[in-house]
Amino acid sequence: MSNSHEPAWLDDVKWDAQGLVPAIAQDHQTGRILMMAWMDREALALTARQYTAVYYSRSRQRLWPKGESSGHVQKVHEIRLDCDADVIVLSVEQLGGIACHTGRESCFYRVLKDDQWRSVEPVIKDPKDIYG
Amino acid sequence: MSNSHEPAWLDDVKWDAQGLVPAIAQDHQTGRILMMAWMDREALALTARQYTAVYYSRSRQRLWPKGESSGHVQKVHEIRLDCDADVIVLSVEQLGGIACHTGRESCFYRVLKDDQWRSVEPVIKDPKDIYG
Repeated sequence: MSNSHEPAWLDDVKWDAQGLVPAIAQDHQTGRILMMAWMDREALALTARQYTAVYYSRSRQRLWPKGESSGHVQKVHEIRLDCDADVIVLSVEQLGGIACHTGRESCFYRVLKDDQWRSVEPVIKDPKDIYG
Repeated sequence: MSNSHEPAWLDDVKWDAQGLVPAIAQDHQTGRILMMAWMDREALALTARQYTAVYYSRSRQRLWPKGESSGHVQKVHEIRLDCDADVIVLSVEQLGGIACHTGRESCFYRVLKDDQWRSVEPVIKDPKDIYG
């Protein structure tokens, strides 16, 4: 539900039945797609206010300020909306160069090849050292 | 449901409650994010067989071979899966240079600026001339 404290542009977004919208984070320099996560109204409002990415964790059912435990904050350069107003793209600067919880730059490190998903990206930092 | 005619790697994908997964199409050369749509098992299987993008249209509730009416087919160079196995990225060559039904290169042509979503991308071709 909207309220008077929320910016009006939030109402232009078509939230799904759960009140969420997919948000794609892309490296602002290389164009590399780093991850896709979800946002609720509050997450998107906070992202736009702070210009650091805040998602909504569906598994934990709470706001997820990206980097809160890893330090791998995403500084937001630009926020875009698609033609159907139901997908967001964030152009970001990924602090630490690691977006994925596996310690890789991008969550999209598996390529379909010879009928298998093959990991083709190095782990930059052991997750134990990120979250330990 | 899987069957013996379907490749096993489809079972590695975590399909949502509707049997769908989001698929992001990215220009294979520029890295530009062109669109995000949805795929069911059949759409992804066809995409991987033909190496042209096939989505599932939630509004029309049927397979949507991209470019079927516009001619703006997406030739697929690579198919990636994320760490949680619930998002696909396609690296594509966008025939005609137009992915969006509004006649723009990308569906993400609106930028949040001064508390408004502002269109910042030109229409390359009038939709009347694409679909007319």
